Amino acid sequence: MDDFEIEETATVDLESPVLVEGLPGVGHVGKLAAEHLLEELDGELIRRVYSTHLPPQVSVDEGRTQLACVEIHALDADGTDLLVLTGDHQAQDTAGHYGLTDTVLDIAEAFDTEQLYALGGVPTGELIEEYDVVGAVNTDTQREELEDAGVEFRGDEPAGGIVGVSGLLLGLGERRDLPGACLMGETSGYLVDPKSAQATLEVLQELLGFEVDFSSLEDRADEMEDVVRKIQEMEQGQPAPSEEDLRYIG
Amino acid sequence: MDDFEIEETATVDLESPVLVEGLPGVGHVGKLAAEHLLEELDGELIRRVYSTHLPPQVSVDEGRTQLACVEIHALDADGTDLLVLTGDHQAQDTAGHYGLTDTVLDIAEAFDTEQLYALGGVPTGELIEEYDVVGAVNTDTQREELEDAGVEFRGDEPAGGIVGVSGLLLGLGERRDLPGACLMGETSGYLVDPKSAQATLEVLQELLGFEVDFSSLEDRADEMEDVVRKIQEMEQGQPAPSEEDLRYIG
Amino acid sequence: MDDFEIEETATVDLESPVLVEGLPGVGHVGKLAAEHLLEELDGELIRRVYSTHLPPQVSVDEGRTQLACVEIHALDADGTDLLVLTGDHQAQDTAGHYGLTDTVLDIAEAFDTEQLYALGGVPTGELIEEYDVVGAVNTDTQREELEDAGVEFRGDEPAGGIVGVSGLLLGLGERRDLPGACLMGETSGYLVDPKSAQATLEVLQELLGFEVDFSSLEDRADEMEDVVRKIQEMEQGQPAPSEEDLRYIG
Amino acid sequence: MDDFEIEETATVDLESPVLVEGLPGVGHVGKLAAEHLLEELDGELIRRVYSTHLPPQVSVDEGRTQLACVEIHALDADGTDLLVLTGDHQAQDTAGHYGLTDTVLDIAEAFDTEQLYALGGVPTGELIEEYDVVGAVNTDTQREELEDAGVEFRGDEPAGGIVGVSGLLLGLGERRDLPGACLMGETSGYLVDPKSAQATLEVLQELLGFEVDFSSLEDRADEMEDVVRKIQEMEQGQPAPSEEDLRYIG
Repeated sequence: MDDFEIEETATVDLESPVLVEGLPGVGHVGKLAAEHLLEELDGELIRRVYSTHLPPQVSVDEGRTQLACVEIHALDADGTDLLVLTGDHQAQDTAGHYGLTDTVLDIAEAFDTEQLYALGGVPTGELIEEYDVVGAVNTDTQREELEDAGVEFRGDEPAGGIVGVSGLLLGLGERRDLPGACLMGETSGYLVDPKSAQATLEVLQELLGFEVDFSSLEDRADEMEDVVRKIQEMEQGQPAPSEEDLRYIG
Repeated sequence: MDDFEIEETATVDLESPVLVEGLPGVGHVGKLAAEHLLEELDGELIRRVYSTHLPPQVSVDEGRTQLACVEIHALDADGTDLLVLTGDHQAQDTAGHYGLTDTVLDIAEAFDTEQLYALGGVPTGELIEEYDVVGAVNTDTQREELEDAGVEFRGDEPAGGIVGVSGLLLGLGERRDLPGACLMGETSGYLVDPKSAQATLEVLQELLGFEVDFSSLEDRADEMEDVVRKIQEMEQGQPAPSEEDLRYIG
Repeated sequence: MDDFEIEETATVDLESPVLVEGLPGVGHVGKLAAEHLLEELDGELIRRVYSTHLPPQVSVDEGRTQLACVEIHALDADGTDLLVLTGDHQAQDTAGHYGLTDTVLDIAEAFDTEQLYALGGVPTGELIEEYDVVGAVNTDTQREELEDAGVEFRGDEPAGGIVGVSGLLLGLGERRDLPGACLMGETSGYLVDPKSAQATLEVLQELLGFEVDFSSLEDRADEMEDVVRKIQEMEQGQPAPSEEDLRYIG
Repeated sequence: MDDFEIEETATVDLESPVLVEGLPGVGHVGKLAAEHLLEELDGELIRRVYSTHLPPQVSVDEGRTQLACVEIHALDADGTDLLVLTGDHQAQDTAGHYGLTDTVLDIAEAFDTEQLYALGGVPTGELIEEYDVVGAVNTDTQREELEDAGVEFRGDEPAGGIVGVSGLLLGLGERRDLPGACLMGETSGYLVDPKSAQATLEVLQELLGFEVDFSSLEDRADEMEDVVRKIQEMEQGQPAPSEEDLRYIG
């Protein structure tokens, strides 16, 4: 096998699609957001990328194997074509991150992509009340439009830079003159965070002019809040009173 | 030396041989099973694969060295030709797993192989009473035949997928349109498990229509049970009564 | 992307420039020294080197991304042209160190560089009173000139050799017949050390015949001394009396 | 730089020289033995091998740098030409071990080498009284001559095989039809062991028909015994009486 191989699973005709990336990362924000788009907007799998830099394994679902890969789906977001990059894996080494990103950019360029968004989370270390979305761009021309959509630009955040495919899509994209922005939802960093994914998608909606239903993400957010409450109860050594219980107090 | 080199140790004429893999892994199930086939069915060494991704070492047997390799034997299983892949090593890195698997598939394709079975163990974390064999396939067409042979397909097992050459034989095999199944004997995961190897081979016998004697595997299973009993005694701080002892009680 | 890629950010005409390297290392001595040259002598960025062996990330400054790279600035040091190599990263693996160094030497050779200086620190394990500069050369012809400039040559220092790009610039430089010296300011090894950087630059000034102002480095040294004093106070469990306090004693 | 580069430091005319390897390893047995040959028989440095798989560093001796390498010296052992491979480093990764060994074998083949000996130690875990030399060969034809020279062949030793360049010289040598033997002096494995090096060299003398003086190795062995005695004293909490002391007792 070559270091990077592209499998074409469907032939589609797209108009300068916008590339949206959501691979696993902090709080699974990007992955949750990208998968939500696929569910709500009926994404069609068009490409798989295999690589000798991905884990040497197959996943198994109901006894059927699938070689480790990242996937690109095409979908129509209220008139805007999107290419959505998702997957369960990141590359296993430094050269793999660069090569995988280059391969994805090759695919996007073949479709005449002129803009990309990398979705992810930025860890704050504490539980979030209001979910801000922090931005980074590889060209200054994108800044105003993002600020108008509510994105915050901060002097020194994220402090450690942006690591992995999200960062390289902007870095290698710039080398190809492909404008790109990273939208990073604030998240504690401790838990899978559907609310942060929603905040990030709301910015993307504003930027691209489409709308999706968020009820399934909200359901997952409720589930996560149950998890958080149970963890807090365990830490306090006794169950916290539920609303049901409180009704009888006093 | 090239990254992967094939040494031809014998020239043989085979009829669409079935590839059977049994490299080291969980409970040494695959390795025990494959080596049992070689012993019982008089395997002939036909190929060695050397690689700069295998450990940089020679093994020594009675003062004679052998460069690290994996080996392919040919044998006749009651009329069905088999290619059996065994060895003491797995590749040392991600690219090595992919390249070694590709090299083995190249050899199998040169012999017009049309089916492969990867043998291994699936860890359960507890001692096994009845040894089920769990399956995974890279084409849905193989499923019914395997179920008829007693293989179980489970929704989410093995949870972490199938790692290493066993998994990649199915994953890269699918990319070459070569049907493949993984037969995974349940095993505790703590000990070398000849009984799990036997359970896996019994499924393979059923699938390919051959029979081997299991007495040597059963002897090894008895030895392992002695080991388990001794460990349990040590944990309890005193020897457990043997059957001999029990005869005098009461 | 190729393993190593050179971006030309400005076209300049230089006369046999001297290559000066100051990448991150012990006490950040080399990096502080090189960056001080850039500030005081108005360095112009002429080349960036990108590599799949550098960390897979972008840095972010006020929301603007920059792909991981090392940078070469050109500057005029009182009539002597310098190429100054700086950056925030070292290569991530062995092959990367060699390849990055070779790429930098290719750039230097294209400008007809005939001499290189690698700047760094040599750890002593204790706080330094008088900052000696220890030297190493890849040709014996350089030794006398360095000794005249106050550089010390010691039998077995640095004991572990010189690791990374600093060492390889001398080692690979020798293979290309490019004379090179490493100037290593003594430093405790525990702290960022502007005084050691100054001592190293003072030797370089003497060797190349230029002069820079050191007041900004001295300010940073004062800041570091404040840090050291506060650490010492914390270790003693109470604040040490300041000069202000002492005036009232007795 | 290429992955492996050969520097020719002298042109020599040799007659089917025997390759002798002594790189760093258990008890530094091989390295001590090879360096003793160089000292006693006036070895001439003829080749250096550089590699991007060796540590990215230069060593420094009296201020003069040397890029990491392995070295081949030529010498005349009472009429037999030897190529002696020594150095301070092993390769940093698996592919490096294979490539470095291949490069050394290329050099040896260019000189029409027809026999190689890899020198090393085999750890026993306890202090040695009588230093046996254990052997391993890559062709059975060498066995008798080695046994006649006092080499022992043992069923399952060394248990873990022979790792690194020593092992690969035999393994890759066999792939090139170059007979090779590994001579492994028994050693505790805890200390640099000149006595084990001497035992190994005495076998090599017998095999190749030459003689060297061992007084400098014996001096180093005496020094090591002093070290061992001091360690034993420290463990017992008080100095052991010296012979001087004992003279006054009773």
